[in-house]
Amino acid sequence: MPPVRTAAILAVGSELLTPHRLDTNSLFLSGRLNDIGIDVVSKSVVGDNELALAAAIRHALDAEDLVVTTGGLGPTADDLTREVVAQILGLELVENAEVLESIRRRFERRALHMPDGNRRQAAVPKGAVVLPNPNGTAPGLWIDAGKAILVLLPGPPREMQPMFEADVLPRLLERSGGRRVVRRVVKIAGRPESHVEEIANPIYSPFATADTPIETTILATPGQIELHLSARGSDVAAMERTLESAVEKLAKALAPAVFSVDGKSLEQVVGQQLQARGWKVAVAESCTGGLLGGRLTDVSGSSAWFAGGIVAYENEVKQQLLGVAADVLERHGAVSEPTAVAMADGVRERLAADAGVAITGIAGPTGGTPEKPVGTVVIAVSAGPAVVRTYRFVGDRAMVRQQAVTAAMELLRQTLASQPQQTASR
Amino acid sequence: MPPVRTAAILAVGSELLTPHRLDTNSLFLSGRLNDIGIDVVSKSVVGDNELALAAAIRHALDAEDLVVTTGGLGPTADDLTREVVAQILGLELVENAEVLESIRRRFERRALHMPDGNRRQAAVPKGAVVLPNPNGTAPGLWIDAGKAILVLLPGPPREMQPMFEADVLPRLLERSGGRRVVRRVVKIAGRPESHVEEIANPIYSPFATADTPIETTILATPGQIELHLSARGSDVAAMERTLESAVEKLAKALAPAVFSVDGKSLEQVVGQQLQARGWKVAVAESCTGGLLGGRLTDVSGSSAWFAGGIVAYENEVKQQLLGVAADVLERHGAVSEPTAVAMADGVRERLAADAGVAITGIAGPTGGTPEKPVGTVVIAVSAGPAVVRTYRFVGDRAMVRQQAVTAAMELLRQTLASQPQQTASR
Repeated sequence: MPPVRTAAILAVGSELLTPHRLDTNSLFLSGRLNDIGIDVVSKSVVGDNELALAAAIRHALDAEDLVVTTGGLGPTADDLTREVVAQILGLELVENAEVLESIRRRFERRALHMPDGNRRQAAVPKGAVVLPNPNGTAPGLWIDAGKAILVLLPGPPREMQPMFEADVLPRLLERSGGRRVVRRVVKIAGRPESHVEEIANPIYSPFATADTPIETTILATPGQIELHLSARGSDVAAMERTLESAVEKLAKALAPAVFSVDGKSLEQVVGQQLQARGWKVAVAESCTGGLLGGRLTDVSGSSAWFAGGIVAYENEVKQQLLGVAADVLERHGAVSEPTAVAMADGVRERLAADAGVAITGIAGPTGGTPEKPVGTVVIAVSAGPAVVRTYRFVGDRAMVRQQAVTAAMELLRQTLASQPQQTASR
Repeated sequence: MPPVRTAAILAVGSELLTPHRLDTNSLFLSGRLNDIGIDVVSKSVVGDNELALAAAIRHALDAEDLVVTTGGLGPTADDLTREVVAQILGLELVENAEVLESIRRRFERRALHMPDGNRRQAAVPKGAVVLPNPNGTAPGLWIDAGKAILVLLPGPPREMQPMFEADVLPRLLERSGGRRVVRRVVKIAGRPESHVEEIANPIYSPFATADTPIETTILATPGQIELHLSARGSDVAAMERTLESAVEKLAKALAPAVFSVDGKSLEQVVGQQLQARGWKVAVAESCTGGLLGGRLTDVSGSSAWFAGGIVAYENEVKQQLLGVAADVLERHGAVSEPTAVAMADGVRERLAADAGVAITGIAGPTGGTPEKPVGTVVIAVSAGPAVVRTYRFVGDRAMVRQQAVTAAMELLRQTLASQPQQTASR
């Protein structure tokens, strides 16, 4: 058995060719295949069209060691993958009694009669291994096509993913030639990508040519950068040691902007900091309209450390509900450091919380001035003496708001990290 | 010139084969090609690999009338599209003085010296039409490859999209054989997909076989359904009449759940309703943590009709900031109709707004009880006598929260729509 090194992924379904839908199964499959050292060399989408599908599968089988298809195994006339594969490989389709019985039972359990169309799902190309589908009617198929392996999986992720884990991964592991991939992720907030690259590059580039080489990918979202490090080889312990050493060096060089090296999100990290202190946080938001509260409460269990918030879009609300003094607003404006501090102090006090975070800014596209252009955002954290910073974010309204939320969470994290752990003083 | 009927889209770049990135350019291209009656038959992603790229382009040119590539036109050694295309089509690459000059000027305008790598971007396969790139250094290329047309576009959307609009679309229109596509979108909130399909199907299925046939696609996101109707042909006036008639019938049958037939989002529709009345809305949120305020303020100019909000995660906050009576919370619980009404009334009053909207619920995964399982959400609108409804949403925490936000906006919309327009009574 030659080892499997390269793969093509083929998503089947006309709906995936419309302007509204993307094939996202390939993200899961690429990740899992990479994990066992298999390179994904191409990804394609092809509609429910016999000739196009046949050509695409043939092309992929010629080019790679492994071809994984998703979709087109359903009961309707549109679903052609099984038949096309049997045809191009010259395999007879035989009705499999066991598969038919399991589909029938699935309908019976719901007190339904099996429609005729579903009978087609029991047709198995001669020599194929049937991959059971506990979450749907369409079984998967594993076909040794000589030079390459062809795996047919159902399209719905909740059927495809468990099937891949249970019945495809173990078979591929036998064929992967013992290669493994180990990964680590370093997450950084509040630094531009170019800045991270400038610092990180001299650190990780020597690792690219080391005995245990490390590959690095930079992923940027508004306000946040992730460095994905991966090592590929057969000596897992050596790969883990090398990665650990690289992660340590990166975390040190990029401190204090590194908020996680263990996969945790910023909201999880902040939640843990607050919980460790027995603290609750409250938020006062202007231009983000509630998105900071929304993100903090993305985490289940956030009620343990999130008190609530005040969205103060109008100046009257800033005065009445947050206690911002009218003369502060008048002298400095709604987007100013004194206002942000007053908002953070105010929300902390009014909600009887241990920490207060405030965001006020100009998300755009209108409302900018020469001194305070669109993208100007002021963030304050009140937990002891207030910490306040002014930012100039670039991008459209949505990007400015996203960056503001991430920056506020990062300023809260750094403020909490720089203070000795203590119990609430409220 | 034979008309162009079918297309393949090919995205080039190894980063698009990782588990982190999807090719989204194809969504834009599919939409625009469909608009002029060209069917996208396949989409592929291929890495920065000479052989794989050559095989993929050859395969696509054999199969379709038009092949559009995105990416791989940059200045680095990884960028291979131009060279590979010249090779497989047997075309000589010639440095184009005009292109070189325009790249050089681009650097000069920024007081930068042109790096050597960028010189490659001026190489043009003999006979190709150069498509100018006002937003970057890589020009696009239009190549008549005999049986098929090959169009090479840069990868960054802000370079690719304007180039497509200015220089590709007009050329394709000359080759599209006069076919056009006209579209309409009907947007519906708060109805399950199966319910919409049951009502809509008898209405639009006769149109599928009419003289001017209509194709229909249903797109579902949590809490919201979109019906996309499109007609394809050469008689634009007839297509518009047919679509108008279908949209009217659907809007009538699905009323009052249809919130837009002109492309507007729910937040835009609600904003317009409020502005027409000179009203401001305030929100009180519990389980959504600020997401309703966040979504309402997605729209630029929302300060004209959004006052602010209170995120009342803790019961103390519900009492102190929203004035919810302790005995209401005690007798009925935080997730109850009386509490929701008190929250909506409270936020309306405290923020001196004309309308108040409240959300309280159990987003999960924990916190459910037999009487109030995870997914139970109560929404109240206070604008005159309070309107309140209890929902049971299905899905994970993020899905429950999204559906709650959409349902709250829809309940606000219906409440406003059912009231005569009047000026604020505050």
